[in-house]
Amino acid sequence: MDKRLTSWVEIPNNSDFSIHNLPFGIFSVGSGAKKLGIAIGDQVVDLYAVANLGYFDDIDLDKQVFLSDQLNDFISLGKPVTNTLRLKVQDLLSDDTSPLKEDNRVLVPQSEVEMHLPVRIGDYTDFYSSIEHATNVGKMFRDPENALLPNWKHLPVGYHGRASSIMVSGRNIVRPKGQILPPDADTPVYRPSSRLDFELEMGFIIGKKTQVGESITTSDAENHIFGKVLFNDWSARDIQKWEYVPLGPFLGKSFASSISPWVVTLEALEPFKVAGPEQDPEVLPYLNYYGAKNYDINLEVGLRPRHGEENMLSRSNFKYMYWNMAQQLAHHTCNGCNVNVGDILASGTISGKNPNSYGSMLELAWGGKKPITLSNGEKRTFLEDYDTVTMRGYCLKNGIRVGFGEVKAQILPVVD
Amino acid sequence: MDKRLTSWVEIPNNSDFSIHNLPFGIFSVGSGAKKLGIAIGDQVVDLYAVANLGYFDDIDLDKQVFLSDQLNDFISLGKPVTNTLRLKVQDLLSDDTSPLKEDNRVLVPQSEVEMHLPVRIGDYTDFYSSIEHATNVGKMFRDPENALLPNWKHLPVGYHGRASSIMVSGRNIVRPKGQILPPDADTPVYRPSSRLDFELEMGFIIGKKTQVGESITTSDAENHIFGKVLFNDWSARDIQKWEYVPLGPFLGKSFASSISPWVVTLEALEPFKVAGPEQDPEVLPYLNYYGAKNYDINLEVGLRPRHGEENMLSRSNFKYMYWNMAQQLAHHTCNGCNVNVGDILASGTISGKNPNSYGSMLELAWGGKKPITLSNGEKRTFLEDYDTVTMRGYCLKNGIRVGFGEVKAQILPVVD
Repeated sequence: MDKRLTSWVEIPNNSDFSIHNLPFGIFSVGSGAKKLGIAIGDQVVDLYAVANLGYFDDIDLDKQVFLSDQLNDFISLGKPVTNTLRLKVQDLLSDDTSPLKEDNRVLVPQSEVEMHLPVRIGDYTDFYSSIEHATNVGKMFRDPENALLPNWKHLPVGYHGRASSIMVSGRNIVRPKGQILPPDADTPVYRPSSRLDFELEMGFIIGKKTQVGESITTSDAENHIFGKVLFNDWSARDIQKWEYVPLGPFLGKSFASSISPWVVTLEALEPFKVAGPEQDPEVLPYLNYYGAKNYDINLEVGLRPRHGEENMLSRSNFKYMYWNMAQQLAHHTCNGCNVNVGDILASGTISGKNPNSYGSMLELAWGGKKPITLSNGEKRTFLEDYDTVTMRGYCLKNGIRVGFGEVKAQILPVVD
Repeated sequence: MDKRLTSWVEIPNNSDFSIHNLPFGIFSVGSGAKKLGIAIGDQVVDLYAVANLGYFDDIDLDKQVFLSDQLNDFISLGKPVTNTLRLKVQDLLSDDTSPLKEDNRVLVPQSEVEMHLPVRIGDYTDFYSSIEHATNVGKMFRDPENALLPNWKHLPVGYHGRASSIMVSGRNIVRPKGQILPPDADTPVYRPSSRLDFELEMGFIIGKKTQVGESITTSDAENHIFGKVLFNDWSARDIQKWEYVPLGPFLGKSFASSISPWVVTLEALEPFKVAGPEQDPEVLPYLNYYGAKNYDINLEVGLRPRHGEENMLSRSNFKYMYWNMAQQLAHHTCNGCNVNVGDILASGTISGKNPNSYGSMLELAWGGKKPITLSNGEKRTFLEDYDTVTMRGYCLKNGIRVGFGEVKAQILPVVD
C-alpha cells in the first residue's frame, strides 16, 4: 500500500474520491461541451485546463484528447500514458506549493457539472460469476438439490448484452413493456412488466484492444483492463422468463442498464486485492491464475420509495466473486474473439452468502415469496413506479478510501 | 416493377449488380484511403469522384461524407438524401449522353479494389426466425414430437451476438478453440472445435436511430432499415453445446461472423416482395402487419474442399422466413430498446422444407448422422480445414436481377 497522501483540495471525510483514487469521467458545465475530468473530493479536475497550463507537456499526448465526449481515445493511448498522467495529477494535487492551488480555472465543483456516459461502448458482455447468485436462481427455478448447472464451475458462464441502452447514472428508467405469459395462461400478452428488478453488478472497461484470433492469458489480463464502474443490470423477470429458452436473456434486459460515471482505474484498486474463493474442481489450465485477483469492494443497494426515506436492501462485496476478471477475460478470448477499448464486461449479480447480501429483488424477496417491508410500512417483492435504486461501492483499508460514487435511477411509469 | 433500364456500363449477363441494384460499399484501391462506392456490373462507382464533378451539387450533403471508412455517416443523412443520390447515380449510368461515360476517374474495376466492412456495427442481434431451422434443431436436440418451444410462434426469438468479430467477405476464419465436453466424458477439455459449421443467414442494417424508450411499429419498420447483406454466422457446435444453457450462445459464435461487402438497399429489393407464410396462432397486435413483408431472394451455399471443385450444398430462399424483418424490429424495440445506424439484425439460419435447402451442416448432415459426399469423394459432417464456404444471393423477376454478390471465407487450421 502506498503511504497515505494528503491533498490541498478539501476532501470530505468518507469521500470516495480521495487523492488515492482519481477516477476518470466525462463532464460538462451548463451548455458547454463534454470533456475529460478526474474526480477529487467534491471537485472535478478539468484536464484540458491543466493541459493548457502546460503541466502535461512532458507526457506524450495531444491535449485535444481531453476535449471529447468519451474516454476511448484517451484510454487508447495506453497505460504508460494514462497512468503517468494520473500520477502527475496526484502529485499536483498533493503538492502544497503547486501553483494550481491558486488557479481557479482547474477545479469545478461536482455540484455544477453534468456527468455523461464515460465510454463509447462497443460490445457489452454480462457474466454470471457469483456462485451464491447462480445457486439462488437455480434453487428457485430449477432443482434445489442441483442448483448449479454442470458447466457452471468449469467456465465463467456469460452472454452478450445490449450496448446501446447502457446509460449513465441519473437517467431514469421507464418501466418496460413486453411479451409475458401470465401464470396459468396458455397464451402470452403484451403489457408492462410487473416483476421489474435491479441487479447489483460491477463492470470493467477494456483498455487495450486485441485482434480477431488473439487470446488474452489470465496473467496478461490486467494489462487489458482500464478500470471499473458500478453496474445496474435492470431486469424484467416476467419478460425474461417467457423469452429466454433457448437463446438466453434478450428483451428482459435490453431496455436499460445503468453505470456509474467515474471509471476507477485498476491501479487505484491495486491495494485492495484479495484472494478469491477456492475453485473446486480445478479449472482448466487456460483459466488457472496466480496471485490475488479478487478485490475487496464493499457494495450496497438502497431503495427509496416515492414517499419515504432510503432503505438499505443489501450489503454485498465484490470479493465474493467465484470467477475473477482475469478468468472472465481469458475465457472470453479463448476462442479468438477480439475486444476493443470501451467494451464493458460485467460481473453478473453479486450476491453474498447471507440473505441481506443478495444482489437482486428476485433473491431478496425470494421470487415474491418473502416480501420486504420498507421503513414506511410499504411492502416490495419487485420494484414499484417511482422507486429510486442507488448502488454504491468503496474500498477501505488503513484509513484509505477509494470509491465509485453511485449509480442511481428512478423507475418511471409506462406512458401510453 | 420499374420498367427495365439499361446502362452504358457493360454489365455481364447474370451480374448481381444491375442498373436496378446499385448497392453501397466501402472500397480502397492499392494503399489508398477507404471511400464510398456503388457497384455496377464489374465496376465500382467512386462517389467522391462523381461528387467532385459536381453531379451531386443539388443534393444536401457534404462530399467529405464519401471519404470515410464506413457508411454510417452517409446512412445517417436519411433516406430522402440516400435514395435521391442512388436514383441520381441510376440516371447518370442510364443516360447514354452522360459526360460521365467519357470520364475515366469515376469507374474502378472491382478486380482492382479491396472491399471493407461496410458499416461500423454498434450492436448485432441474431434471430432464429426460420421455422424449418428451429424445427430441425428441436428434433435433433430436444423432443421430435415437440420440436418447437412454446414461445417460438408467439415471438421472434433472438439473442445478442458479438459485433466486434464481424468481418467482411474474404477474411479467412481460424478454427476456434474452446471448452468442450467430449461425448461420455465427465469433465471438459480445451481444444480446437471439431464441429465447425456455417449458418446461411441474411442481415439487415439499421438506417435510422431511435431513442431509449421508443418502439418501432411494423408499419414504420422499413423506414428504419437501410439495406441488407448476406451473413454467415459461423458456429462451433461442440463449444456451443457445452456453454449455452442457461444464457444462450456465446463463444460458440463469437469467434467470427462474415458479411458480404455490398449493402443492397431496401428500395432495390422492393420489387421482390412476396407474402410470408401464414402465422398460426395469430400474433399479438404489436406484431401484426399489413402487406407483403417477405422477400423472394434465392440463396445458395457452396463448399469447395482444398483439393476439388465447389459443391453446391444448399439452395434456399429468404421468402421462407416465418418472422419478417418488420416483426423482428417491432419486437426488438417493443420494450423501449433503442437502435443505432449501423446495427445489424440477422435472420437466423434460413432453411427450407427440403433437405437440400437446409442452411447449416448441422442440418444437412443431420448432426453427423448423414455425412455428405463431395464430388471429390471426400465426406463431410462438419467443416474441415481449408474448406471454402461461399454464400450467394439474388432476386430475379421479369429478367431483372438484383443480387448480393457473395460472402466467402476459407477455414484455416489452428496455429499453436
